[in-house]
Amino acid sequence: MLNKIALEEAWNISDAASLGGFQPGSLAPKGVIGGDLGANLLDIHGTRLQQMDENGVEFMVLSLVSAGPQGVADKAGAEKLARVANDKLSDEVMNTPSRFAGLVSLSMHDASQAASELKRCWNELQGFVGVVLNDFQSAGEDGNTMLFYDDPIYDTFWKTAEELNAPVYIHPRSATPEITEKMWKGREHLAFSALGYANRVNMHLLGIITAGVLDRFPKLKIVVGHMGEHIPYDLYRIDHKLNRARFPNMRMRKDKLVRDYFGTNVFITTSGHFSTPALLCAMAEIGTEAIMFSIDYPFESIPNGCVWFDEHVKDTLNARDLVRIGRGNALRVYERLREAPHGLKELTTTECGVGGLRREEGEVEFGLYNKDWSRRMVRQ
Amino acid sequence: MLNKIALEEAWNISDAASLGGFQPGSLAPKGVIGGDLGANLLDIHGTRLQQMDENGVEFMVLSLVSAGPQGVADKAGAEKLARVANDKLSDEVMNTPSRFAGLVSLSMHDASQAASELKRCWNELQGFVGVVLNDFQSAGEDGNTMLFYDDPIYDTFWKTAEELNAPVYIHPRSATPEITEKMWKGREHLAFSALGYANRVNMHLLGIITAGVLDRFPKLKIVVGHMGEHIPYDLYRIDHKLNRARFPNMRMRKDKLVRDYFGTNVFITTSGHFSTPALLCAMAEIGTEAIMFSIDYPFESIPNGCVWFDEHVKDTLNARDLVRIGRGNALRVYERLREAPHGLKELTTTECGVGGLRREEGEVEFGLYNKDWSRRMVRQ
Amino acid sequence: MLNKIALEEAWNISDAASLGGFQPGSLAPKGVIGGDLGANLLDIHGTRLQQMDENGVEFMVLSLVSAGPQGVADKAGAEKLARVANDKLSDEVMNTPSRFAGLVSLSMHDASQAASELKRCWNELQGFVGVVLNDFQSAGEDGNTMLFYDDPIYDTFWKTAEELNAPVYIHPRSATPEITEKMWKGREHLAFSALGYANRVNMHLLGIITAGVLDRFPKLKIVVGHMGEHIPYDLYRIDHKLNRARFPNMRMRKDKLVRDYFGTNVFITTSGHFSTPALLCAMAEIGTEAIMFSIDYPFESIPNGCVWFDEHVKDTLNARDLVRIGRGNALRVYERLREAPHGLKELTTTECGVGGLRREEGEVEFGLYNKDWSRRMVRQ
Amino acid sequence: MLNKIALEEAWNISDAASLGGFQPGSLAPKGVIGGDLGANLLDIHGTRLQQMDENGVEFMVLSLVSAGPQGVADKAGAEKLARVANDKLSDEVMNTPSRFAGLVSLSMHDASQAASELKRCWNELQGFVGVVLNDFQSAGEDGNTMLFYDDPIYDTFWKTAEELNAPVYIHPRSATPEITEKMWKGREHLAFSALGYANRVNMHLLGIITAGVLDRFPKLKIVVGHMGEHIPYDLYRIDHKLNRARFPNMRMRKDKLVRDYFGTNVFITTSGHFSTPALLCAMAEIGTEAIMFSIDYPFESIPNGCVWFDEHVKDTLNARDLVRIGRGNALRVYERLREAPHGLKELTTTECGVGGLRREEGEVEFGLYNKDWSRRMVRQ
Repeated sequence: MLNKIALEEAWNISDAASLGGFQPGSLAPKGVIGGDLGANLLDIHGTRLQQMDENGVEFMVLSLVSAGPQGVADKAGAEKLARVANDKLSDEVMNTPSRFAGLVSLSMHDASQAASELKRCWNELQGFVGVVLNDFQSAGEDGNTMLFYDDPIYDTFWKTAEELNAPVYIHPRSATPEITEKMWKGREHLAFSALGYANRVNMHLLGIITAGVLDRFPKLKIVVGHMGEHIPYDLYRIDHKLNRARFPNMRMRKDKLVRDYFGTNVFITTSGHFSTPALLCAMAEIGTEAIMFSIDYPFESIPNGCVWFDEHVKDTLNARDLVRIGRGNALRVYERLREAPHGLKELTTTECGVGGLRREEGEVEFGLYNKDWSRRMVRQ
Repeated sequence: MLNKIALEEAWNISDAASLGGFQPGSLAPKGVIGGDLGANLLDIHGTRLQQMDENGVEFMVLSLVSAGPQGVADKAGAEKLARVANDKLSDEVMNTPSRFAGLVSLSMHDASQAASELKRCWNELQGFVGVVLNDFQSAGEDGNTMLFYDDPIYDTFWKTAEELNAPVYIHPRSATPEITEKMWKGREHLAFSALGYANRVNMHLLGIITAGVLDRFPKLKIVVGHMGEHIPYDLYRIDHKLNRARFPNMRMRKDKLVRDYFGTNVFITTSGHFSTPALLCAMAEIGTEAIMFSIDYPFESIPNGCVWFDEHVKDTLNARDLVRIGRGNALRVYERLREAPHGLKELTTTECGVGGLRREEGEVEFGLYNKDWSRRMVRQ
Repeated sequence: MLNKIALEEAWNISDAASLGGFQPGSLAPKGVIGGDLGANLLDIHGTRLQQMDENGVEFMVLSLVSAGPQGVADKAGAEKLARVANDKLSDEVMNTPSRFAGLVSLSMHDASQAASELKRCWNELQGFVGVVLNDFQSAGEDGNTMLFYDDPIYDTFWKTAEELNAPVYIHPRSATPEITEKMWKGREHLAFSALGYANRVNMHLLGIITAGVLDRFPKLKIVVGHMGEHIPYDLYRIDHKLNRARFPNMRMRKDKLVRDYFGTNVFITTSGHFSTPALLCAMAEIGTEAIMFSIDYPFESIPNGCVWFDEHVKDTLNARDLVRIGRGNALRVYERLREAPHGLKELTTTECGVGGLRREEGEVEFGLYNKDWSRRMVRQ
Repeated sequence: MLNKIALEEAWNISDAASLGGFQPGSLAPKGVIGGDLGANLLDIHGTRLQQMDENGVEFMVLSLVSAGPQGVADKAGAEKLARVANDKLSDEVMNTPSRFAGLVSLSMHDASQAASELKRCWNELQGFVGVVLNDFQSAGEDGNTMLFYDDPIYDTFWKTAEELNAPVYIHPRSATPEITEKMWKGREHLAFSALGYANRVNMHLLGIITAGVLDRFPKLKIVVGHMGEHIPYDLYRIDHKLNRARFPNMRMRKDKLVRDYFGTNVFITTSGHFSTPALLCAMAEIGTEAIMFSIDYPFESIPNGCVWFDEHVKDTLNARDLVRIGRGNALRVYERLREAPHGLKELTTTECGVGGLRREEGEVEFGLYNKDWSRRMVRQ
C-alpha cells in the first residue's frame, strides 16, 4: 500500500547524552538493532526518508526516543530536555512538513508545567500533531519514584490536551532501577520490548481509563502502540473483572466498560507487533476504526513492517479496511495532519495502490503471490 | 440489540393464487416452515409486528414473496401481479411507515416496462425504498425460458434504478421445471434454500457485475442475502479465475475486480444464514460496511435470527460494528429510509442497547452469558 | 514449508484427442493458462518435478485431467479412455513412486464396470492411492444426459471404494452443451473455474452425502478441492435448511448433519483457492484435520500456490497446523501413501522447515517478512 | 457440551486462616464474588457437584486456592500449609475420584523440599494429577522477597515434575506488599484479576521458558489459565524481540522460539476469560491442541463459563474441536486422569452431546438459537 502514515517513529537529539536522554548503547551493542541505532535515531531526511519512499510511507509522525523526559528524575532536567527536544523537532519537521510532523515531549513532573509546555509547542511552534508520554515519570532522589497520570493532579494536563485536541501517545519505557532489580533480575531480556514494556504501559493506560479521565475529558484521545499492549486480547476479562460492586470507588463511569472507549477515545497502532492473528482479534474486539498502522522505526525495520502490511495483511483484508488502517484512521485521530502545514488528504484505495488491477502495467490476473508463473521468485 | 432494521422480509397478497403468485403449500406442508406460512405471509400488523417489538426489530422492509412476477411466464400476468402487489404493499406499509417500507416488485419481461413501473411506484406511490427481483424472469410458452439481467437490453432498467437511487435486491427463486428435472431430480431437497437458490443467484449477480452494469451505472446498488450467496468465501478464486487475458471480452472494467464493488455498489445481508464464522469471513473479505442484518421472515423465525445476532454475534463483535450491521449500514444503502415518511435516524450503540452497563437496571458486571451466578438458566 | 504433498494435480495422455480426452485449446488460447498448458499436462518428470523441488513439494498425486472419462458420452469410449489412462499413469508414476502416485480414472456409465476397473487398478497395477471422478458422467446420444452418483445404482461402486479404502476425489468439469446454452450463454466466463465448476460439484457432493452414501459406507472418504466448493462457508444454512420434517425422505441419517461428516469422511483441499480468510473460515467450520494442501497444477502455478502457503499461511497459522494441512492430513486420508512403493512418513515441523530458528544459517531473529533490515527486498 | 473437564477449580481448607492460607474477605465483601465465596471454596460435594451435574462438567481438578503456600513467607509455615492441604485434598477427592482429582500444593522455599513433597503426594497419596504453583514464592522477613522458578536452583524440582509426568499449573496470585504499594497504589482494582495477575504470571512463565527449563526437561508440561495470560496475542512480538544476537545469554535453545513450545510443553486454559475472539486468536497462534476448557470456580460462575462454552463457542466452532478443548486435550495433558482411580476415557462428539441432531428428542432442524419459532425465549 502506498501513502501510509506511521505514527510511532523515534528520533533523537544529538546532545541527548548531556541532557539525560536516550543512549543507543544502553539497549544493545551497535549493529544488533538495525544498523547503527544511534545514527538512525538522529537521521530524518537521509536514510529514513529514502526508506519511506521505498516502502510507501508517505508520512511519519516523529517523537523523541523513549524514555525522553520521563526518564529524567530531576524536574529541571526533564523540563529542559523536553523543551530542547521540542524546539529541535519543530525545526526538523518543518523542513519537510509534507512528510513529517512531531509529537510534543513533556516532563510530567508538574502537570501545570506540562500543560504550559504543550500549549507553547501547540500554539507557538509548528509541526506538532500530538503528544508523546513515555509511560510513568521518574522522580525522586534515587529515581525510583514513579509518577502516574491517573492521579487527579494530572487533570490539568488532560484538560489542556483535550482542549487543544492533541492526541496523547503513551509509549513504553524501561523500568526504574528498583523495579528492574526486584522483578526482572535474571530475566532482563524480558524487561524491555518482549514483555516488560507492555506490562507497564497497559497498567498505566488502564489506570487512566478507569480513573475516569476519559469521562471528565470526553474528547480526549489516547493512543498506544504494539497492537494495544495486550489489552484487546484480554478485554473480556478486564471488563468482566472490574465488577462495580467489588470496586465501587473506581472512578470510571458506572455505565461504561473499558471496551466502550476504543474507537472514540482510545486507539492502537501496529507498531512493533506485525501479527496478522493479533490484528484480526483486535478488529473484532475494538473495531477497525480503532487501529492505525505504525512501524516503531528505528527499533523496527521499515521494510519489514511494510512488507507485513503491504503483502501479508493485504492478502487477508479487503482494500478499504487496509487503507483505513494504513492511513484513513490516522487522519481522523490526528486531525492536525489534515491542516497546514501538513495538508494530508484522505485517499482512495486506488490512490493508495490497492485493489483493482493495474491495467496500465498489463496486469490481467488477480491473486498472484508469485508473479512468475514457473519460477519461484525470491526476495533479493 | 434494539432498533434493528431487517431488509429481506416476505409478504404476500391475498389473491396470490389467482395472480400466479406464491402458494404456501408449494414448499412444504403447513406447519413445517414456521407456524402457518401462508398466514404469516399475509400478516403485517399482527403477529409480525408483535414479534418485531419483542425482538428489537424497529423496522422491516417488505417484499412480495418469491418468485413474484419473476415466476409468471406470461408477460401480461407478470406485469399485473407486480402492479397489484405494488399498489397493495404501498397501502399496507403506509399504515405504519415508521415500522415498514416496501420493495417494488417488477415484471422483467420488458426492461422498459420494468423501468416505467419502477418510476410509477417510486414517484406516484409512497413507501418504497428499493426494488426486489427474484432472480431470472420466467418466460416462454413452457415457462422454461430464463431471462437474465446481465443482457444489455436491461440497461434501460438499471439506468432508471440508478437515477432513482433505488437499491435492487436480487432474491432467490426456484428453478424452471426443465432445470429442476434435469439437475435436481432425485435431490430436490437441495434445489431450494439449502443450495439451489444460492447457486442460481450467485451466477446471476456475478453475471451482472462482470457484464459491466456497475461500471455503466456507478451509483447503482445491488443487494443479495444469505450472507452473499457463497460469494464472499470464494472471492479470491472468482477474481483470480476471471483472468482478463483469458476473457478479453468480459465487459467489466479491466482495472477492477469483483471484490472492489462490495461496500460501494454491492452489499450482502445475513438473511437465512445465521452463521458467525461466515460473518467473520465476509467481514475480512468485503468489509463490515458491506454487510446488513436481515432475517428472511417468515421463512426464518424472527426470534431465532435475533437471538443469533443479539447474543451470539454481540459476544464476538464490538458494539460499534454490531450497530453498523444491525442498522447503520441499511440507512446508508437505503437512503430513502431516512426521509419522510419513514424518517429513520442513525442511533448510537447506547440507543441500541448495546455496549456499556445498564446502571439503571443495577448491572455491575460485564460478561454474564448466564445472569444467575449459581443456577443454569434455560431458555423458556 | 518443505515436503508438502499436493493432491489435485493434473496430467494428460498424449493421445487424449483421439480418445475423447481434454484438449488444451478448449479452455483458453495457448499461453493464457501458464505457459504451454498442453505440454505442462503431458509432463511429469521434467518441468513439473523441477518446480516441485524448487517449491518444497515432495509429492504430487496425479490425475487424468478433467473431464476424463466423465466427458465421454459413449460408454465404450469412456471405459477405454479410463483404461488407457490408468495403464499409462501407473507406468508414469512408477518411474518415481517416491514423488508421484496416481488417482484411478473411471467411466461411470456403469457402476459395476467402474468397480471392476477400480479393483483392477488397485490390485493389479501399482501407484494408485485413490480415485478421481470429474463430477457427473456425460451420457446419452447428444451428450446431454447427466449421470449422478447419488443414485442408489452407484452403491456397488461406493462399496468397492470403501472396501479398498480408496478415497474418491470429486473434481469439477464443464457443463453439458445443453446446460451451457441454457444457463451460461452470455456469461461463459463464469461457467468454468470462476463459478460454474463449484456450483455443479457442490450439488453433486451434497447429493451424495444427503443420499446417505456415507451412512451405508461409513469408512468411505470423499475429497473435494477449491477450499470445499463453497460448502464450508454455507454449512449453517445447508444444515439448517435440510429440515427433516420438511424433507422426511432424505436418506441421510436423521441424527446426522452434513457438517458431521467433515474430518472423518469428507475432506477439502486448497487447490486453486489460495485464500487465507476462506481457510480460516473452513478451519472453524470443519476443523483443521479436514483440510489438505493442493495446487491444481498446471491450471495453477506451483510457485504461486506455494508462496501463498509457505509465506502467507505460515505467518497466520502455528507451525503444527501448517504441517498438518501441508502434509500430515494427506497421509491420514490417503493411507496408501504411507505404504510401499511410496513410503511417505509423517514429519515434524522441523523436518518440514517450519518453526524455530535456523541456527545453522545464523538466524537470530523471528518475524522478518523482509530479511534485509534497510532494503526493501523484492521478488525477482 | 457434556462431560467437560475443568482444570483450574479452587478449594480451601477449613483452617486456612490459622495456616496462612486464603481468607475470602481479603478480595471482596461477602456476596460480591458469587454467593458466599468462603463457603463455596470449602464445598466440594455439595453445591459444586450439583452445579457440575447441571452444567455438563463431568470432572473438576481442584487446587488449594491462591496464593496457597506461595503466600506464606515463612518456610516452615509454607511447607506445613502445603502438607496439610495435600493430605486433606487427597482425602476429599478420593471420596469421588470419578468426579474429582487434585493438584499438589508446594512450598517453593526449597526446591528439594518441593520435589520431596511432590513425590510424597504423587506416590504415597492418591488423587493427584498435577501440581499447582501460585506464581512466585513469598519469602524474607517482610514478605517482600520474591522467589522465581526460572532460577537454576529449581531444576531439581522441574526434574522431578518431569520424571513423574506431573504437569505444573502456574496460577496467579496477589503482589507483595511492596510491589502493591509501589505500582498498584491508587489503582488497586487493577492489581488482581483484571490485570495484575496476568502481568505477573506471564513474566514468570516466559522467564521459565526462556531460561531453558523446557529444554533441560523436554517432557515437562506447564499450564497457565486465563486464555494464556496475554501471551498468545503477543507471540509475534515476544519471539521477535527475543533476538538471540541481542540476548546471547538467554538460556533457551537457540533454534527454538517461545511459540514452538505450545502444544507440546505449554498449554493454556480458558479459565476466567470466556472470550470467543481471544479463543480464535489462540487457536491460530498456538493451535487447538494447546487449549483446554476451565472455569476458575468459585471466582467464576460455573453456569456462566459453561453457557459461554456450550452455546457461544459451540456455535462458532466445529464439534470435534469443541470436544478436544472441552475434554480431549485435558486427557492428553493430564495423563493420570485416564488411569485409576479416575479412569476417564476419550469420548466422541455424540457422547458429549454435540454435533448431529437429537432424533430421539424429535429434533429435526439445525441452527435454532431460539427453539420456539415465534416466541423469544428468555433465560430464566
